[in-house]
Amino acid sequence: MAKKQFAVIGLGRFGSSVAKYLSEMGYEVLAVDDNSQRVQDVAHAVTHAVIADSTDEEAMSALGIRNFDVVVVAIGQDIQSSILTTLILKDLGVPSIIVKAQNELHGKVLSKIGADKVIYPERDMGLRVAHHLISPNILEHIELSPDYSIVEMKVPSAMVGKNLIQLDIRQKYECNVLAVKKNNDMDITPAPNVPLQPDDVLVIVGRNGQLTKLEQAYAEL
Amino acid sequence: MAKKQFAVIGLGRFGSSVAKYLSEMGYEVLAVDDNSQRVQDVAHAVTHAVIADSTDEEAMSALGIRNFDVVVVAIGQDIQSSILTTLILKDLGVPSIIVKAQNELHGKVLSKIGADKVIYPERDMGLRVAHHLISPNILEHIELSPDYSIVEMKVPSAMVGKNLIQLDIRQKYECNVLAVKKNNDMDITPAPNVPLQPDDVLVIVGRNGQLTKLEQAYAEL
Ligand SMILES: Nc1ncnc2c1ncn2[C@@H]1O[C@H](COP(=O)(O)OP(=O)(O)OP(=O)(O)O)[C@@H](O)[C@H]1O
Ligand SMILES: Nc1ncnc2c1ncn2[C@@H]1O[C@H](COP(=O)(O)OP(=O)(O)OP(=O)(O)O)[C@@H](O)[C@H]1O
Ligand SMILES: [Ca+2]
Ligand SMILES: [Ca+2]
Ligand SMILES: [Ca+2]
Ligand SMILES: [Ca+2]
Repeated sequence: MAKKQFAVIGLGRFGSSVAKYLSEMGYEVLAVDDNSQRVQDVAHAVTHAVIADSTDEEAMSALGIRNFDVVVVAIGQDIQSSILTTLILKDLGVPSIIVKAQNELHGKVLSKIGADKVIYPERDMGLRVAHHLISPNILEHIELSPDYSIVEMKVPSAMVGKNLIQLDIRQKYECNVLAVKKNNDMDITPAPNVPLQPDDVLVIVGRNGQLTKLEQAYAEL
Repeated sequence: MAKKQFAVIGLGRFGSSVAKYLSEMGYEVLAVDDNSQRVQDVAHAVTHAVIADSTDEEAMSALGIRNFDVVVVAIGQDIQSSILTTLILKDLGVPSIIVKAQNELHGKVLSKIGADKVIYPERDMGLRVAHHLISPNILEHIELSPDYSIVEMKVPSAMVGKNLIQLDIRQKYECNVLAVKKNNDMDITPAPNVPLQPDDVLVIVGRNGQLTKLEQAYAEL
């Protein structure tokens, strides 16, 4: 199976990050911007980096953009260019077009004209950061259902030095500690009598309400 | 325990998203921007929204900014304002200052002058989106260790209509299906003979290499 080929148009902070990571992972990436400085900044990191205006249909066609499996449009401020670029890519037959939107109205227009996926990186990262501000010890969260989740919880300072017997998480919160991570070691049968260290991470499964209770009981103001 | 109080300075897409979510979660939020339109756009959603230049120390002092537990500086383009604002907040004694950086150099300066945390929302979301482009079926990922992970995997189209006995994931990939999510229902004892549906999500635990093998075996180009 041939590896997917990607193109990224618009090399701001978001677009250049997408392009560089795909390239690091071994994928062929074409990076496009009409600002030569931006192109120069990523040129060393991707397969091809080209100065071009993506609202110029002939230029896009000449780049063979239709041969890329996925094109990411990461143009920011200039909403008109973002829309026009999306139209052109659709017209040229690009199989999958992913476009960054500024706001919901912009996003709706993009979907209407054929964007396969509309993304809101700043809004989504805002939610993630806000969530982390409220629950700083919760590093990861997998919802198993509306009721149950698995969380990765950094050991709160009030737990440091105590062991799992003393904390009695199972009885008090009806949650199960599945594993304790210490540095890069995982212990899936953590010894109940070993005191927790400041940088340990607990992997815990339980009911959402109980997990929240546990997290709040140990929350640091 | 009193709830934390937050302030957000700079109401672009990222900053306004942080402010709105904190406010939705019931926290007191002061939102600040020197652009009156930006302030107006979030005013309905937060406790206080104020037009002010955050590089004006007297204005910041008059807002009582030192009384907020956490201040998020989400000023974008204008690196000089972001640095000056951080200096002023530090000087006024804000307990926790979180600053969005444009690039690594900017980030280093921010740390040196006292930012408690430097974040790169566009870069980080770029990594997440790129990761998702490569592995579109992996919705969530918790590393249990460098060797083991739990993943949430959208049922790939090649699995649809087959049941867990036919797929034989346990034997073929030495991975365990912990749960099957259907809409908002979780089944932690999924019937092995029920065919999977297009929107089902599998929660699977296994060795990283085996999980990758499983994911790639069913990858859609
Ligand atoms: N018509 C166009 N053709 C090619 N590139 C374009 C075009 N219009 C804008 N761009 C490029 O898109 C990139 C991203 O735009 P901009 O910096 O406005 O977005 P942003 O949302 O602030 O980015 P980020 O938040 O990711 O840093 C810029 O490098 C800009 O030169
Ligand atoms: N000195 C200042 N005082 C208050 N607000 C400021 C100041 N300087 C900039 N801002 C505000 O910060 C906000 C974010 O700035 P900008 O739009 O340049 O960032 P951005 O990184 O492109 O944002 P985003 O990607 O989150 O949309 C703007 O609304 C701007 O008015
Ligand atoms: Ca192809
Ligand atoms: Ca911008
Ligand atoms: Ca941005
Ligand atoms: Ca306080």
